[in-house]
Amino acid sequence: ILGVRCISLCFNCLLLIFLDYGLNSVSSSLTLDDLFRKELTVHDPEAKWINDEEIVYRDRDGNVMKHNVHSNQTGIVLKNTTFSMFKASTFAVSPDQNFVLLGYSVKQVYKYSFTASYSVYDLHTRNSREIVPLNPPEVPDSALQYASWGIQKQQLVYIFENNIYYQRDRQSNSLRLTSSGREGVVFNGIADWLYEVELLQSHVAHWWSPDGEKLAFLMINDSLVPNMALPRLTGSLYPRGQQYPYPKAGQVNPTVKLYVVNVNVVTQTVEMVPPSSFRKSDYYISMVKWTDNYSISVRWLNRPQNTSILTVCEASSGECVKKHVMTSDIWLDRQNEQPVFSKDGSKFFLTIPIKHGARGDFHHIAMFSDQSRSEEITIRHLTSGNWEVTEILAFDETQKIVYFLSTEDSSAQRQLYRVSVEEPFNRRCLTCGLYNGTCTFVSAEFSPTMQSAILNCKGPDIPKVSVHWLNNLGGFHILESNTEIREFMSGKKTLEKEVRILQVNNHELPMELTLPAGFSEKNLHPLLLIVDGAPGSQSVNDKFLLDWDSVLVSSDGVIVARFDGRGSGFQGQKILQQVHQRLGTLEVQDQKAAIEALIKLPYIDQRRIGVFGKAYGGFLTSLLLLSYDTIFRCGVAVAPVTDWRLYASAFTERYLGFPSENGRIYQACGILHNMTGSTHHKFLIIHGTADSNVHFQHTAELVKRLAQSNVNYMLKIYPDEGHDITSSKSRYYHYRTVMTFFRECFYEDSQIIPEQEDDD
Amino acid sequence: ILGVRCISLCFNCLLLIFLDYGLNSVSSSLTLDDLFRKELTVHDPEAKWINDEEIVYRDRDGNVMKHNVHSNQTGIVLKNTTFSMFKASTFAVSPDQNFVLLGYSVKQVYKYSFTASYSVYDLHTRNSREIVPLNPPEVPDSALQYASWGIQKQQLVYIFENNIYYQRDRQSNSLRLTSSGREGVVFNGIADWLYEVELLQSHVAHWWSPDGEKLAFLMINDSLVPNMALPRLTGSLYPRGQQYPYPKAGQVNPTVKLYVVNVNVVTQTVEMVPPSSFRKSDYYISMVKWTDNYSISVRWLNRPQNTSILTVCEASSGECVKKHVMTSDIWLDRQNEQPVFSKDGSKFFLTIPIKHGARGDFHHIAMFSDQSRSEEITIRHLTSGNWEVTEILAFDETQKIVYFLSTEDSSAQRQLYRVSVEEPFNRRCLTCGLYNGTCTFVSAEFSPTMQSAILNCKGPDIPKVSVHWLNNLGGFHILESNTEIREFMSGKKTLEKEVRILQVNNHELPMELTLPAGFSEKNLHPLLLIVDGAPGSQSVNDKFLLDWDSVLVSSDGVIVARFDGRGSGFQGQKILQQVHQRLGTLEVQDQKAAIEALIKLPYIDQRRIGVFGKAYGGFLTSLLLLSYDTIFRCGVAVAPVTDWRLYASAFTERYLGFPSENGRIYQACGILHNMTGSTHHKFLIIHGTADSNVHFQHTAELVKRLAQSNVNYMLKIYPDEGHDITSSKSRYYHYRTVMTFFRECFYEDSQIIPEQEDDD
Repeated sequence: ILGVRCISLCFNCLLLIFLDYGLNSVSSSLTLDDLFRKELTVHDPEAKWINDEEIVYRDRDGNVMKHNVHSNQTGIVLKNTTFSMFKASTFAVSPDQNFVLLGYSVKQVYKYSFTASYSVYDLHTRNSREIVPLNPPEVPDSALQYASWGIQKQQLVYIFENNIYYQRDRQSNSLRLTSSGREGVVFNGIADWLYEVELLQSHVAHWWSPDGEKLAFLMINDSLVPNMALPRLTGSLYPRGQQYPYPKAGQVNPTVKLYVVNVNVVTQTVEMVPPSSFRKSDYYISMVKWTDNYSISVRWLNRPQNTSILTVCEASSGECVKKHVMTSDIWLDRQNEQPVFSKDGSKFFLTIPIKHGARGDFHHIAMFSDQSRSEEITIRHLTSGNWEVTEILAFDETQKIVYFLSTEDSSAQRQLYRVSVEEPFNRRCLTCGLYNGTCTFVSAEFSPTMQSAILNCKGPDIPKVSVHWLNNLGGFHILESNTEIREFMSGKKTLEKEVRILQVNNHELPMELTLPAGFSEKNLHPLLLIVDGAPGSQSVNDKFLLDWDSVLVSSDGVIVARFDGRGSGFQGQKILQQVHQRLGTLEVQDQKAAIEALIKLPYIDQRRIGVFGKAYGGFLTSLLLLSYDTIFRCGVAVAPVTDWRLYASAFTERYLGFPSENGRIYQACGILHNMTGSTHHKFLIIHGTADSNVHFQHTAELVKRLAQSNVNYMLKIYPDEGHDITSSKSRYYHYRTVMTFFRECFYEDSQIIPEQEDDD
Repeated sequence: ILGVRCISLCFNCLLLIFLDYGLNSVSSSLTLDDLFRKELTVHDPEAKWINDEEIVYRDRDGNVMKHNVHSNQTGIVLKNTTFSMFKASTFAVSPDQNFVLLGYSVKQVYKYSFTASYSVYDLHTRNSREIVPLNPPEVPDSALQYASWGIQKQQLVYIFENNIYYQRDRQSNSLRLTSSGREGVVFNGIADWLYEVELLQSHVAHWWSPDGEKLAFLMINDSLVPNMALPRLTGSLYPRGQQYPYPKAGQVNPTVKLYVVNVNVVTQTVEMVPPSSFRKSDYYISMVKWTDNYSISVRWLNRPQNTSILTVCEASSGECVKKHVMTSDIWLDRQNEQPVFSKDGSKFFLTIPIKHGARGDFHHIAMFSDQSRSEEITIRHLTSGNWEVTEILAFDETQKIVYFLSTEDSSAQRQLYRVSVEEPFNRRCLTCGLYNGTCTFVSAEFSPTMQSAILNCKGPDIPKVSVHWLNNLGGFHILESNTEIREFMSGKKTLEKEVRILQVNNHELPMELTLPAGFSEKNLHPLLLIVDGAPGSQSVNDKFLLDWDSVLVSSDGVIVARFDGRGSGFQGQKILQQVHQRLGTLEVQDQKAAIEALIKLPYIDQRRIGVFGKAYGGFLTSLLLLSYDTIFRCGVAVAPVTDWRLYASAFTERYLGFPSENGRIYQACGILHNMTGSTHHKFLIIHGTADSNVHFQHTAELVKRLAQSNVNYMLKIYPDEGHDITSSKSRYYHYRTVMTFFRECFYEDSQIIPEQEDDD
């Protein structure tokens, strides 16, 4: 079904993967409509361990299933008809497995956050009339910002108007754990925009102690943070916009405090005391994790993001002890990584950069051990090499083994490894060769006693989710294999992916080409470069992806290229950190160099080269297209960042510092400063007008400047849509627009009409 | 220089005007850059009578000049260097001619309104240090909403924060005449958006009595009017939008009161009492004019705009006497027309519709006479015919003559006539044949004793402004002849204008074609239809106009067509009023019929037909382009109205009534309802995001719907620009965009790329 071969052209070759779904003789091209078929959507079963034996997940038809790894039996918990009866879309099974919390009327807020209404459904009576809505006292039909079961039995916690509420069980009264919450100002247990999108990568800002007795939560105070206005344009006669706190680079940041409350004795709310060196300046709390029932590990990060302090705090007193301090001249990454602790808390594991000769630092596992409870901590490095540990998953104390994911085999891969915590730190790959090598990009969720794990194979073959015994990965049970995709694709033409290593500016950097079916080097093909390029991101990896660009490859003979230049992640700190204080510059150099290498290939038509990017990629796309000597005939920038002064503090300051101190750097990194291009290239800008991440402001400033500079552009706006175009109709239109744009660019030999009056 | 010939093809022909500026053998095409040359801008000297002998105006170089019609001498009042020294842009000479009020830092607000700072400059000392800024007490450097001299000597009136201030002379203290003013809520002496744009066609809402002792002013109260938000997108880190009262169709309207204040006895402020029949319902005050020093004529209009009451009110008591009541089943137009009164107030002249056989009503002069001060009024009709009196200019009581402008010779013309007020009402054209017939579209401003008039010849030849003795129009003095335009155009290729009468849907309607230089019927030309079409507007007339479409004609061989179908003005009430309750429908029918007649001509290429329109014209353009059977290949809609529920009350209700009562009519007249088109036509939408007239909301709703319906469009936005694109750079870019769009549409034979996946 999937073949890998190595080819050798003018570059070093890594491997060529061709996704061949069958030998159907009447295979057809992939179309845009195909992408919107149910058969082609990758189903994520959201499988979770509910105890050491049982997994709950949702099958492709929407039923909630329970699978027992010991008995290997699978049963139905909740039928999809129950969901449709209550118009519910989310579910959570109570710890005692007697109830389900159903969520409905889900409304997206920012990237991760949403509001919803919730009801509790009794799995024993299964009486639809007994469904009990979850509401704050005296607020019927409320939309909650969060709701979930706790740790024990029927504990419930939910957030409403930025305050946390607790219920001991589904029938007891709600207890308000906080009272300082004010919408859009003070956030308890839930993140503001900045913490959600730039720091925690989650809207959840509270954490249960393992015994379910205590709740740690952030109180984020945005009262001094400037509000950004999101205009509203449609839907009523007098549409009203809204405001929300969004600190742009150099503006006032929210303040943050970490509290622990005992849910049985609500009066006991204790603040965790920040490190003394941070008390008088801005800082972030970038990670919170309970180490046991009494103490909590916290990472404190200064605002410039070059000093980080990992502490363990005593929940009852709030006293914190420093465990690890990091400083850097550049910036510190991975600041939300959770350390993995031993049961007694005397050991913990964390990735830290360690040097690998001239190739610089790579993230590897360090074991930190308290020396007999003294202040002194010893550090041992369990792994090393010119590859990176991407995630530490678990520490099995009985076997003295740490499980982790790494890029040891290729930066494009994530394989599951185990390493002994005792010298000589033997390590072994557990997933390499799994499914005949069609599964090289995995994530894993371990059962509480670490006897088995849910493996999510994300590629390069069609994704599958399965449960494995850790002592024998070959014995497994498949939860989701997405066979519908395989069946559908068996009638479609093959796509080939080829990964090459380019030598660019003294770095070996990966380039991925997606080639059309029946590709021959004798034909000339148009080339589309897709850029992302935010520091630490990765475009070339083994994740399975069928998107609009796959259609262009399959139907239109376009070759799609992705290239991870300097600034990209998972290839060590040296490649990543070079973009410090010069966002855009090196990325553009590298992407250009990559394209220049490519166009020497006999089958690339150098007159038909396009570029596409979103957000940071839109920033790079604009830079690439608007530069004087661009080789691109056309480009699409979706929600582009055009001026870093307008973007979020936590992201921007990490790389560029404060605008008041680094004004010149900010200017040099902006699109408006780098616009030297002419009007001969087709430039399509696409932006949702209610984008809360990259504000429409960026595009407005850009098109204003383009008009002043007499540069041509095309524009599509999505009124009142956000950073991601979520509605199916809009997404279809969006894809169609982008594809039509590139088709016209690549296949329409448009004459340039001479303009007598304005050429000079 | 200019020739008129009659041709006869398949239509009735009116005349063919060809603007031939010389026989230069190396004549070149007109270009876009030409349009932005100083030489090609028509200079309006803004000439004004300051007494019966003297005219003040501004010459092409910016100097303020004074011309004496008796001595025929011209002198300089203020050099252009004085303007540049103070960065001033506006001026006004005081009634006693000793001072000049200079305005600077002018900022446009809505269509007519602007804020500015003002200073008084002494014409005798001419000492630049003695310039005195005009400010409210204790508000230095204020931006005023209005400032002007009064009637006597050095009287000054100005408006700040919606309150009226008065100064007896330039050095006396300011007296606040009103105190109820509240920004954005209560307006004194100045119009709110609705009164400015839809009712008064001016932001000035106060009127001096002839002796300068009393000031009549409107108090417009918007406290219950919903506010529309105008988002702001650029210019700062956190741009803030603004709100202003804008009653959409069916929403709460402002209330209005008319007061008279004696500026010498400020405590005496008297309200003019509205007609009893209006007191309990919404009404507008659509016209205010002093008849003498003691009484004031006022037109009151009910909200549906089908009942209008003209009263004369006694300024001292506020008592009003009805002089003329009009009602209609359709709507009443010309509601801001000012009656012309005899000195004793016993007679006044007004245009009213009178029947002309089957062709319906036409506006003609009616003389209203009080019968010996009784309540009874007699009406005599001074003119009649199938043409219209467009403006009554003056009543010369000694000669017993009324001066007026009319369309008697052609609906495209405005000629100055005189008519005797005594039977048999002899009338005579004064301007017909003036300048050998090159001046057929005039406006006029009469000197106080009506001995002479400033004539503004607006076309068809290059505009000129001159002063004439009324007893001998041949003897005149030219104030501005725009010779620069003539000189420049002498090197350019000829444009020909041809006016034809089409028989469309049983009406004879005028169509204007602009033909390229060296036009030959043997060649095939693309056709561009330019539509306006708001009820009562006129596209075909003799006004001189060089615009971007002239460039398309001159440089690209495009033929431009303009057509006045049903709904257009100056051709009688019957043609105008048929669009009642069905905006869009008939106009689209007629424009289509006109195009269908045109494409039968051998030299029109029916595969290359485009359409352009702004505002109401953008509404029609969208309808024409998005209909199923459109013959247009492409179209540009600028600031289109897409849903009448979103447009202003006073305009929309006039034609469509209340949306609560006529919901179906509103729906039937909207673009969203009439979208039956496909994606094969190129559709460019252009809109300023801060348009206070047609809100950007219209375009947002349209593009949202287009995306949902999978219809292709192109978009240009002008961030934070209003209804009219005023800045020179933006205007240049705008023109260039529109021209390039049509060039590509007409001259690029773009293949249609088959889209396999989404055709059905």
